[in-house]
Amino acid sequence: MSRGEATAFAPATIANVAVGFDLLGHSIAGPGDRVTARRTDRPGVTIASIDGVVDELPTETERNTAGRAVLALCAAAAPDLGVELSIDKGIPLSSGLGGSAASAVAALVATNTLLPEPLATAALYPFALRGEAAASGAAHGDNVGPALLGGLVMATATGAQPLPLPDGLWCAVVHPDLELETRRAREVLREPFELDAVVRQQANLALVLTGLHCGDLDAVRRGLRDELVEPRRAPLIPGFAAVQQAARDHDALGASISGGGPSVFGWFGDEAAARRAAPAMQRAFAAAGLDSEAHLSPVRGPAAHVEQPR
Amino acid sequence: MSRGEATAFAPATIANVAVGFDLLGHSIAGPGDRVTARRTDRPGVTIASIDGVVDELPTETERNTAGRAVLALCAAAAPDLGVELSIDKGIPLSSGLGGSAASAVAALVATNTLLPEPLATAALYPFALRGEAAASGAAHGDNVGPALLGGLVMATATGAQPLPLPDGLWCAVVHPDLELETRRAREVLREPFELDAVVRQQANLALVLTGLHCGDLDAVRRGLRDELVEPRRAPLIPGFAAVQQAARDHDALGASISGGGPSVFGWFGDEAAARRAAPAMQRAFAAAGLDSEAHLSPVRGPAAHVEQPR
Repeated sequence: MSRGEATAFAPATIANVAVGFDLLGHSIAGPGDRVTARRTDRPGVTIASIDGVVDELPTETERNTAGRAVLALCAAAAPDLGVELSIDKGIPLSSGLGGSAASAVAALVATNTLLPEPLATAALYPFALRGEAAASGAAHGDNVGPALLGGLVMATATGAQPLPLPDGLWCAVVHPDLELETRRAREVLREPFELDAVVRQQANLALVLTGLHCGDLDAVRRGLRDELVEPRRAPLIPGFAAVQQAARDHDALGASISGGGPSVFGWFGDEAAARRAAPAMQRAFAAAGLDSEAHLSPVRGPAAHVEQPR
Repeated sequence: MSRGEATAFAPATIANVAVGFDLLGHSIAGPGDRVTARRTDRPGVTIASIDGVVDELPTETERNTAGRAVLALCAAAAPDLGVELSIDKGIPLSSGLGGSAASAVAALVATNTLLPEPLATAALYPFALRGEAAASGAAHGDNVGPALLGGLVMATATGAQPLPLPDGLWCAVVHPDLELETRRAREVLREPFELDAVVRQQANLALVLTGLHCGDLDAVRRGLRDELVEPRRAPLIPGFAAVQQAARDHDALGASISGGGPSVFGWFGDEAAARRAAPAMQRAFAAAGLDSEAHLSPVRGPAAHVEQPR
């Protein structure tokens, strides 16, 4: 099945999901990154081009999230392979929608098809973690896990595991026209955390996980709130409290910051509720002076996949 | 069904369970407290006697965990009721086995039968929380929840919910001859916690919960470790590291401090493994100069219950 060229798509993702900092994330339908991997004569990995909604990313392989991930894959599985990557970014930089993860995952899925013996999809996870570390300085899998596998994923240092999702869960995520660098969003987390907040947050996590496993949306609703990280990051996002309240006013199960922000997401019991909430959330950002873009998706969003040649 | 007198039993409990500080706990077969509630002519709650393995507990109703819980129940459900409580302690003080919770729960279950309209068992939970606050200064439900409902329980501020348990899970818990006051065990938790430790611990909690819901003992094994609280409390327990290692050497899924300590528990895949581990854990305490007592139980331990008159 070895080929000369392949293009793969990986979706945007909502990480943290209020209760699972650096642990939980889910993919969304719509935005994503495309990467074409092309076999070359000379061993090694190069970045041929970066296009799309951003173009200021590093083209040096070691510093590029897709480049670093593919370097790690080739070192492990095909040291003599030569690959060049063309990256088409559909996810804006520093949006909190997992853009660096999507590039790494799309590059891996595309390159995987060029290998003499392609790996199983789940086996690409550790290489995606290596790519993510290039972007954010920390190897957390809550974006790459769901970008790779789709749906809601529990991503730990050792593996990524899909979690059950009750039917009908939808999300609305609103991306304001503002960049919030991951590194800056992490700086506010340096000060340590009081035990009380940790205990409340662990209870929230347990309620959401138990609610998902049992199909108990009331438990999800009671748990889906971030008492750990959101209080520190919310001040970095103009209008956050009003956007969150707009989601809650439209019957969100919960609403919080997507990844490192500034995007804000809400979970809803059905598609109609998500559709009603999104414009209200956008109006709240507008009142804070920010244009925004809204995405609607089942929480069970798509997995990365190879695209057929046109 | 209103009676003049009733006796109830409530079991010892293992709280925290490595991954759920102030959140998870399970009951064990064997040790427990018995409380007899007797109707009196004069409204109010009094402590008639305290016997058993401890006798230095406060007999002033407001300061006694059982007294405080029953006061709260009567205030809500039967303000004119007069009750006297006779407490028979089977759980040693400051052992980390939920003695104060067991007294509160047994007193509530016994008193409940004296009410004109007894409440459902689960409805006693908030009153048990009030009793627990008398003993430890904090209203956490990870002992009273499982003492009341049996098995493994997720105890939050708003309710207690039993969690699924794969068949065959057993525990061994070893109680060394040493008192460790809950208040002292809490003092070492005052300093705040680094984000890294919180993130690792949340991943552990998620692995254990997902493992239990899916019957995946390998996930339970990967997650059942305390990276948050145990590192600070272990120095308060002579021989802790060796006792924990003895459990692991006998194929424990995980082993950590029971409640605020000094008792140490291990979870095992079957009864035979727990039986082999317990004497090894006791030998490790002996090497640290401590006599100890071991209890073996299914993790799905008993619930509190009214005892039939003999």
